[in-house]
Amino acid sequence: MITLHYLNDSRAIRVLWMLEELGVEYELKKYQRTKEMGAPKALREANDTGKSPFLIDGEVKLAESGSIIEYLQQKYDTENQFSYERGSSEWVDQVFWTHFAEASLMPPLVVALIFNMIDGKAPFPVTLLTKKIGDQVRSRFVTPSLKANADLLEEALGKHEWIAGSQLTIADFQLAYGAQAMLGRGKLDLPNLKRWVKQVENRPAYLRAIEKGGKVSMPR
Amino acid sequence: MITLHYLNDSRAIRVLWMLEELGVEYELKKYQRTKEMGAPKALREANDTGKSPFLIDGEVKLAESGSIIEYLQQKYDTENQFSYERGSSEWVDQVFWTHFAEASLMPPLVVALIFNMIDGKAPFPVTLLTKKIGDQVRSRFVTPSLKANADLLEEALGKHEWIAGSQLTIADFQLAYGAQAMLGRGKLDLPNLKRWVKQVENRPAYLRAIEKGGKVSMPR
Repeated sequence: MITLHYLNDSRAIRVLWMLEELGVEYELKKYQRTKEMGAPKALREANDTGKSPFLIDGEVKLAESGSIIEYLQQKYDTENQFSYERGSSEWVDQVFWTHFAEASLMPPLVVALIFNMIDGKAPFPVTLLTKKIGDQVRSRFVTPSLKANADLLEEALGKHEWIAGSQLTIADFQLAYGAQAMLGRGKLDLPNLKRWVKQVENRPAYLRAIEKGGKVSMPR
Repeated sequence: MITLHYLNDSRAIRVLWMLEELGVEYELKKYQRTKEMGAPKALREANDTGKSPFLIDGEVKLAESGSIIEYLQQKYDTENQFSYERGSSEWVDQVFWTHFAEASLMPPLVVALIFNMIDGKAPFPVTLLTKKIGDQVRSRFVTPSLKANADLLEEALGKHEWIAGSQLTIADFQLAYGAQAMLGRGKLDLPNLKRWVKQVENRPAYLRAIEKGGKVSMPR
């Protein structure tokens, strides 16, 4: 029996969505973020790492969305419904986007979030200074990275229905949260990404995931 | 023929090391960071994404260390010298650490670096304030994340020679840069990680990579 430790409003939605697409049985253990957006003590007590998502499947105990998704694909997706054939050109794209999701897409979003939180907390007139520091980081790192990511996503999603081709794959599962966060910022015109996110959010499996895990609201 | 676009002093060392371990022929195109630590214009002109590492192999053009490493393993490591058998428990660990490298290990290191750069740039007495902001981010995000990562690494490397078992795998390639950066900070006592980094740096293939690509110095 699979158990998923699931922190609300988090990238763990990727795994929950995949479990619903696979149609396997699982138990969902939900945890609520603290007021400071951190993981609650209960989650740190529930698994050694305090991480979410965290999957338990018999002997296997696994953290990291990317590795959980690869593990589930290998074990439960026996007909390769969610993966291209290893070595094919679409598979290369699938592998690229699976890694892109955490290695390129998330970092500027997280850094932007940190500086937005700083801006929101500092009292006036200190905000004048913190905003100036934040603006430097934004203009030198956040904005160019987001733009580069957006260009790559728009190009790929202009060519085919899903991120790696005509087939929904683990790369789509892994991308969803970051893509939604990017759209949530509302600062870039991303018609193809918007179309893709709508496709994701209209999947019956995604709707079931949201119903069970709760709506995912995007931090700005 | 493989071509690798390689930015000095960067996580691209992972791919260069792997190419040397594989013993395949390749052409190395080196690029130097700008004074502000960014990628030079020449790299942005050399490949569509401006990314490093960037691998060209016939029709395949690929960015992201993680995906390049998976691609090279699939195509050139025909005897699975650097990968456990898919589905085995060591393979699950290998997949975990491959994703951990970018998703968990790098983010606190990058955020720490950004705040250290801010501290270094601000004039006195502004530093008093920037340091205070930085300290909050460090105590709430950077330090706990680094500590959690360190605990996981120390535990795994206390159990076996390489990160996923007795075999050197792509997970070790993918971890190297972040592990070196973590040791370079010198703030945590990490005997097992230190032993593992020494093992990495003593590999003949790693020494050849450094000779060809230049020494990798770790930003603090």
